[in-house]
Amino acid sequence: MHASIIRAAVHVASIFALYMAGVMLIPAAVDLYYGHSDWQVFAICACVTGAGALTIAAATRDRNPLRSTRLAFLVVVLLWTTLSIIGALPFYTASLNLDLSSAIFESVSATTTTGATVIAGLDALPPGILLWRSLLQWMGGLGVIALSLFFLPVLNVGGFSYFRIESTDIEERPFDRLASFVRALIAVYMFLTVLCAIAYAAAGMTPFDAINHAMTTVSTGGFSTHDASFGYFGNSAVLWVAAIFMILGALPFSILILFIVRGRLDALRDPQIRLFLAYTAAFVFVVAIHRRVMDGVPFGEALTSSAFNFISIITTTAFVSEDYAGWGSFAVMAVFFATFLGGCSGSTSGGVKAYRFLILGRMLRNGLRQLVYGHSVQPLRYGARVVDEEMQRSVVLFVIAFLIVWIGGSLALAAGNLDMVTSLTAALAALCNVGLGFGGVVGTAGDFSAFSDYAQWIMAAIMLLGRLEILAVLVVFTPSFWHS
Amino acid sequence: MHASIIRAAVHVASIFALYMAGVMLIPAAVDLYYGHSDWQVFAICACVTGAGALTIAAATRDRNPLRSTRLAFLVVVLLWTTLSIIGALPFYTASLNLDLSSAIFESVSATTTTGATVIAGLDALPPGILLWRSLLQWMGGLGVIALSLFFLPVLNVGGFSYFRIESTDIEERPFDRLASFVRALIAVYMFLTVLCAIAYAAAGMTPFDAINHAMTTVSTGGFSTHDASFGYFGNSAVLWVAAIFMILGALPFSILILFIVRGRLDALRDPQIRLFLAYTAAFVFVVAIHRRVMDGVPFGEALTSSAFNFISIITTTAFVSEDYAGWGSFAVMAVFFATFLGGCSGSTSGGVKAYRFLILGRMLRNGLRQLVYGHSVQPLRYGARVVDEEMQRSVVLFVIAFLIVWIGGSLALAAGNLDMVTSLTAALAALCNVGLGFGGVVGTAGDFSAFSDYAQWIMAAIMLLGRLEILAVLVVFTPSFWHS
Repeated sequence: MHASIIRAAVHVASIFALYMAGVMLIPAAVDLYYGHSDWQVFAICACVTGAGALTIAAATRDRNPLRSTRLAFLVVVLLWTTLSIIGALPFYTASLNLDLSSAIFESVSATTTTGATVIAGLDALPPGILLWRSLLQWMGGLGVIALSLFFLPVLNVGGFSYFRIESTDIEERPFDRLASFVRALIAVYMFLTVLCAIAYAAAGMTPFDAINHAMTTVSTGGFSTHDASFGYFGNSAVLWVAAIFMILGALPFSILILFIVRGRLDALRDPQIRLFLAYTAAFVFVVAIHRRVMDGVPFGEALTSSAFNFISIITTTAFVSEDYAGWGSFAVMAVFFATFLGGCSGSTSGGVKAYRFLILGRMLRNGLRQLVYGHSVQPLRYGARVVDEEMQRSVVLFVIAFLIVWIGGSLALAAGNLDMVTSLTAALAALCNVGLGFGGVVGTAGDFSAFSDYAQWIMAAIMLLGRLEILAVLVVFTPSFWHS
Repeated sequence: MHASIIRAAVHVASIFALYMAGVMLIPAAVDLYYGHSDWQVFAICACVTGAGALTIAAATRDRNPLRSTRLAFLVVVLLWTTLSIIGALPFYTASLNLDLSSAIFESVSATTTTGATVIAGLDALPPGILLWRSLLQWMGGLGVIALSLFFLPVLNVGGFSYFRIESTDIEERPFDRLASFVRALIAVYMFLTVLCAIAYAAAGMTPFDAINHAMTTVSTGGFSTHDASFGYFGNSAVLWVAAIFMILGALPFSILILFIVRGRLDALRDPQIRLFLAYTAAFVFVVAIHRRVMDGVPFGEALTSSAFNFISIITTTAFVSEDYAGWGSFAVMAVFFATFLGGCSGSTSGGVKAYRFLILGRMLRNGLRQLVYGHSVQPLRYGARVVDEEMQRSVVLFVIAFLIVWIGGSLALAAGNLDMVTSLTAALAALCNVGLGFGGVVGTAGDFSAFSDYAQWIMAAIMLLGRLEILAVLVVFTPSFWHS
């Protein structure tokens, strides 16, 4: 490993930190406007971050940085670490007064768009810190789309290579079509956020709530400005607005861009979109009907709450409108398995994701046919295209790594004396970037302030692993990565 | 699908049923000796089974049966179904008086060597029925070894092809070396059972207990003649005898035969044996040390109970010496994950099994290296040999199918109003043929009589799926299997 690679990665991260210093001025301005003394905290954090970032950026400048796969992996891991550490600064220093592990937990939960919180009493918080939480999630969401559209395909992680944007030849003309694509991405992401905020306001939210929730909806993050989350609004129009925009946030942005910018409706016929919508609809309707039949809940009410809460879980957002733990064993188990699902590749959602299920399902079907007919292997198709061995293998690697991290994470949490359901669902909620599970702490009513410092650090590590599709982090910890 | 294939499969099953009618005379004789009226039940069951089997065998005789892959799959599924239905006859008709679903549950649990029971009050049962339970498990254990040594490799299910016995060319000379190998297998299996019974008797069991437990130890089945299982004996010599023979039962029998019959010690250097022993030792020592450090349990005592109970879970036997649910969160979580592991291929144990973990681990390592270095694929090795793509794919198919059945099974149990922990661990305990999990019913203290008929049927189906390595059953339910 060349030292120049580490140097180059630190340089990229420091440039990024400089942008974050600028973003800190937004909550500073808002707190100043509302007359809350936290504006000074944000202003000081911005200055310190800015000065530090500038110094490091200057010290690590290099005319001809060595481009390599390793640099890309290192940049990805370093960017999220930097984002999370700088994001934690205001949590640690503001009037909120969190301890170090809690501040890092809250920040990682935000930047990974997980949405688990250590803060009880959100309704009483100053506006600046609430806005900072939402901004971090919004940036995290944008970051993860960029990651899965531009980085992971080139790095060939977890089957993402399949979604390489064919018309954008990144290697050859990096500043030509890529730049226009990035601009389109940011425009579409902002457009959806603004649209969502307007819809929320129209449905009855205050402007401040509408802006905050719009940012955490489109990023499928799930932070709220109220402890009761969407239960606070008691308004089903708000729930349906949220449901629609969570779905949009979980669609592949490359396809949303084709649709919104170029008006190409046919782009929506992607097989992973169909599967994602199909399994979401299946969970929503089956549980709504189950509750209607078993508990006699009026169907309209059952459908609204089932739709909102399952879309919230499946898109890995984790807004809550009521406690689904009271819906009976079957619904509870359905919520548990829904946690794994996730949305589409190239979206802000986490979890295993629809295209992986599609490929695993096709592999199983082909495998069973092969058992009957002997050795005649049919090519495995995804839409019209053939999925090669390479792609199948990288999907499988993801699943293996996913299970290992889930098992290891649960054991680590259990070693800190958390019970079985809490350990299993907390680790899963972190790994899928959902942020919600079962039990007093991980369930709808709890917050993670009850976790020990040790458990909070473990959770932060799992959230980062989940957000970076696991393998992108694991690879940095292999000995071969650091060999020359 | 030719009708002659179904005919041929039924013929094989009826021949097999004839043998079972003979075996029923053993508990009949024992009950007659002890003067219990159940001897008549066994005698009548034997006559009815024998007469029925003879009739069907005669009606389905065919000079030139069509040999095909489909016939083999059908035979495997039909054999276990027949074994289970005939096994249930005495449970349904004897003085025990179980209802239909309970009788089938008990019989399937026996023939699949799962070891979950619906019977409370074992200590008071007549000897015949206790012996019948043990005999069913013993036959099931022998059956599953034969299945994984002779059937699954030829059918190429779940990566078993790798363990095809090279020196036995089944296709070409079916009655030559195969027959001598089958004789060696039965001899070794009996030899281990007798040895185990002698050791148990020497350690303090009554002859009747020693014989019964020997049969359910070597088959890693786990049925006991006492409600308290091994807690009844309160004797650590008995626990260590059990631990040793459970380990032996979980080793590949092809290798045990090479070792015992031909004295080849080098055969034990198989990579899957090493991995199996390594993870078993890891669980045993980590939890023993954890209990010593955290709860101050004397190390010798902690080691004995940790060794017995983890070996019991990992080999999928499910004998119990005490309630591990009281060992704290970390141990509970460790037991949960140990449930997945299983022993070696070609053994009586269930679960995912060591060789699959080995191959999945190698796939992950190779995959991470490939991410760093680009496209240089190294061949994946298992011991000295290379594991081809075909083999890797079939291991992956098994894992996909395993997860689908676990998820589907848990949801089906939860739909019957069982809580989350019960549904998840009951489905897992059935699928891995362990028979033990957590909660009032599935835990060490419970029995499955508390499950509804519906839940008992679901459990029976999952146990059969798990025992037949899932894919061998699923394949029979694909449309292409029944196409001409």
